[in-house]
Amino acid sequence: MTTVADLPTPALIIDSAALDDNVATMSAVHAGSRLRPHVKAHKCSALAAVQAAHGHTAFTCATPREMLGMADAGLGEDLLLANEVIDPRRLRAMAAVQADAMITVAVDSTQTIDAAAAAGLRNVLIDVNVGLPRCGCQPTEAGRLADYARARSLVVRGVMGYEGHLMIVSDRNSQRESVRAATDLLLLAHRDVGGAIVSAGGTGTYDLHDRVTEIQAGSYALMDTHYAQLGLPFGQACFVVGTVVSSQARYAVADVGLKALGMDHGDPAIVGATVHFCSDEHVTFSMVEGGQPQVGDRVRVVPAHIDPTMAMHSVAWLIKGDEVIDRWPIDLRGW
Amino acid sequence: MTTVADLPTPALIIDSAALDDNVATMSAVHAGSRLRPHVKAHKCSALAAVQAAHGHTAFTCATPREMLGMADAGLGEDLLLANEVIDPRRLRAMAAVQADAMITVAVDSTQTIDAAAAAGLRNVLIDVNVGLPRCGCQPTEAGRLADYARARSLVVRGVMGYEGHLMIVSDRNSQRESVRAATDLLLLAHRDVGGAIVSAGGTGTYDLHDRVTEIQAGSYALMDTHYAQLGLPFGQACFVVGTVVSSQARYAVADVGLKALGMDHGDPAIVGATVHFCSDEHVTFSMVEGGQPQVGDRVRVVPAHIDPTMAMHSVAWLIKGDEVIDRWPIDLRGW
Repeated sequence: MTTVADLPTPALIIDSAALDDNVATMSAVHAGSRLRPHVKAHKCSALAAVQAAHGHTAFTCATPREMLGMADAGLGEDLLLANEVIDPRRLRAMAAVQADAMITVAVDSTQTIDAAAAAGLRNVLIDVNVGLPRCGCQPTEAGRLADYARARSLVVRGVMGYEGHLMIVSDRNSQRESVRAATDLLLLAHRDVGGAIVSAGGTGTYDLHDRVTEIQAGSYALMDTHYAQLGLPFGQACFVVGTVVSSQARYAVADVGLKALGMDHGDPAIVGATVHFCSDEHVTFSMVEGGQPQVGDRVRVVPAHIDPTMAMHSVAWLIKGDEVIDRWPIDLRGW
Repeated sequence: MTTVADLPTPALIIDSAALDDNVATMSAVHAGSRLRPHVKAHKCSALAAVQAAHGHTAFTCATPREMLGMADAGLGEDLLLANEVIDPRRLRAMAAVQADAMITVAVDSTQTIDAAAAAGLRNVLIDVNVGLPRCGCQPTEAGRLADYARARSLVVRGVMGYEGHLMIVSDRNSQRESVRAATDLLLLAHRDVGGAIVSAGGTGTYDLHDRVTEIQAGSYALMDTHYAQLGLPFGQACFVVGTVVSSQARYAVADVGLKALGMDHGDPAIVGATVHFCSDEHVTFSMVEGGQPQVGDRVRVVPAHIDPTMAMHSVAWLIKGDEVIDRWPIDLRGW
C-alpha cells in the first residue's frame, strides 16, 4: 500500500472523500445540465470524469488545450470554450473534432465570429460583459453580434456572462443584489440574442442564480483558502504535501514553494501554523501550537488559489485517508 | 522564416541579443568560476549552455530535477544543489550520476548530512543562515556540522549563505552595509568549516561582494520588473507574447494570464500600457498613449518574477529581432 508519506514532495494530493462530498453537494443544488463544471479549476480529465459520473456531462473550458483534451478523454458531449480565441490553427483543431464532440466557442466581436466561421466551427455563444472588465460585448450589442454570427451560418446557442468581480463579496445581501443586476444585463442581451443557453455564475455565486439555465462553477470541487472565506458548503479537497527540510529555533521550512502554488491570491495556509513567506522552493512557517516540526515531517499546504496551483503540477495523487489510490495526470495544462 | 507573429500565444520568448548582452555584462564582472549561475531562474539547459559558453561551467540548482537535467545535458562539471533534500530516492538518483558529474549538496543539519551520506553522495557545502529566515544553520553551528560531515566521510567544500532578504533594497549604501554584515557571518562560519568555496549573492547584490569566492546569480540573464527597479546593467530579455482577443472602449484583453506568469511579485507590465489585472488566461490593460489595440494585435508582457514564469511554460522561443531562431525546451521543470 502506498501512503501519502511515500510520495515525493511537493506532492499535489486530492482527498477523494472530500471531492466526492463537494461534487455531490453541488449536484444536489444544480443537477445534470444545470451545472457546466469549469475544467480550468483542475485541468484534469480524470476529475472531470467524476463530475460527469455525477450527471454533469456538459463542461466549460478556458483554453483550446482544455477543449481538445476533454474531447480526447471522451468527455466531449457538450464543450463550451468560455473564452475568445482568434488563432486559426487552434480554432481549426477544435473544428476537427466536431465529428466526435460538440464544440461551442464564446465570441464578443465580429473578428472572433469571423475567425470561428472561417475555421469551420458550428456553434457560438455570445459573451456579454456584465460588469467584469474583461472579455464580453456590451449587452446592447449582443443582438447585433448574434445576427452577424447567424449570417455567417453559425448556430447561436445563447449567451454567457461571467460576473467574476462578484465571486468574493463579504456581505451576502450586497452580493445577491449585485448578481441580480448583472443577471438583468445578461437577460437583456439574451432577449435580443435568443437561443437555449443563459450561462453564468461561479463557485462564489452558485446559489444566487435562479434566472439562468446553467452555472459555470469550477473551484467548488477542490476549493482553496480564497473561496473558503465565503463559508460555502464545500470542503478543502486538495493540498500540496511538503517535507520539512530545515527546522530552526523559531520556524521551519518545507519544500512547497511558489513554483508549486498559485500565488496571485497571496500565501497559502498550513493548518495550525503561521505561514511567513514562500520562495521558489520553500515555505517558511511556525507552528501556532504543538512541538517544533522536525526534519522529515510532512505538512499539508492549502493553496490560496486552486486553478493556477493545479496548472503547476503534472500529476495529482488521489487519496483515501492516507492511502494513495490513484494517479491522475493534470493532462489539460498548457494552451 | 518564422517570426514572433507566427507563434501560438501565450508564447514565452527570449531575445537572444539581450540575453547575450546580459551574460557578457555579468561575465565581465565575474569571470569563469567566480559566477555559479543559478539555473532555477530559467530551468532551461539550452540557456545554461549559453552561460557555459561564456566560461561559467559551475552551476547552482534548487531541485534534484535541475541537478539531474543539467547532468543529463552534459553540463555537470560542478553542480551545487543550494537546497536541503532528505528524500533518499532523489539523493540516490543524484549519487548515481557522480561518475559523470560533480555533485555537491547543501546541508544544514545532522539529518541532511546523514541523508546525503547514506545515499552515497560525496560532497557537501554547509548552508549558513546569514539573515534570511529559511534554510541554513546558525553561523556558530557550521563548524560542528562540518566536523560531523567529515566524520561521515563527506568532503566539505566550504560554505554558502544566501542573503535573499537583501536582494531588493532601495538605498544602495544601506544594502551594501547589510551585505557586509551578512558576509561577516558567512566568513565567521567559513573560518570554522574550511574548504575552498564561499558562495553567496544573487542578481541584486552581484556587485557588492569582494570577500566570497563565487556568486549565485540567476535572474540577471533574463530579468523581470522586480529586479528592474534596481537599475542594474541588465536588460529585459524575456517576454510573454500575447494576442489581443477582446478590445473594448476603455481597455483591451490579451491571452496572457496568471497561468502564464509568476504572480508572487504582483502584476506584470506591458510597455506603454497600464495593466489593470490578470485572471487565469487574461490580462486586462489600457494603452497610456497611442490607439486602442485591435483584436489580433500582439503585445509583449514583461514578467514581474522571472523564475516562476519560466516554470509555467514548456518551451521558450529564442528570437533575433522578430525572427524565431530556436526552440528551447524548459526541460528542468518539476522536482
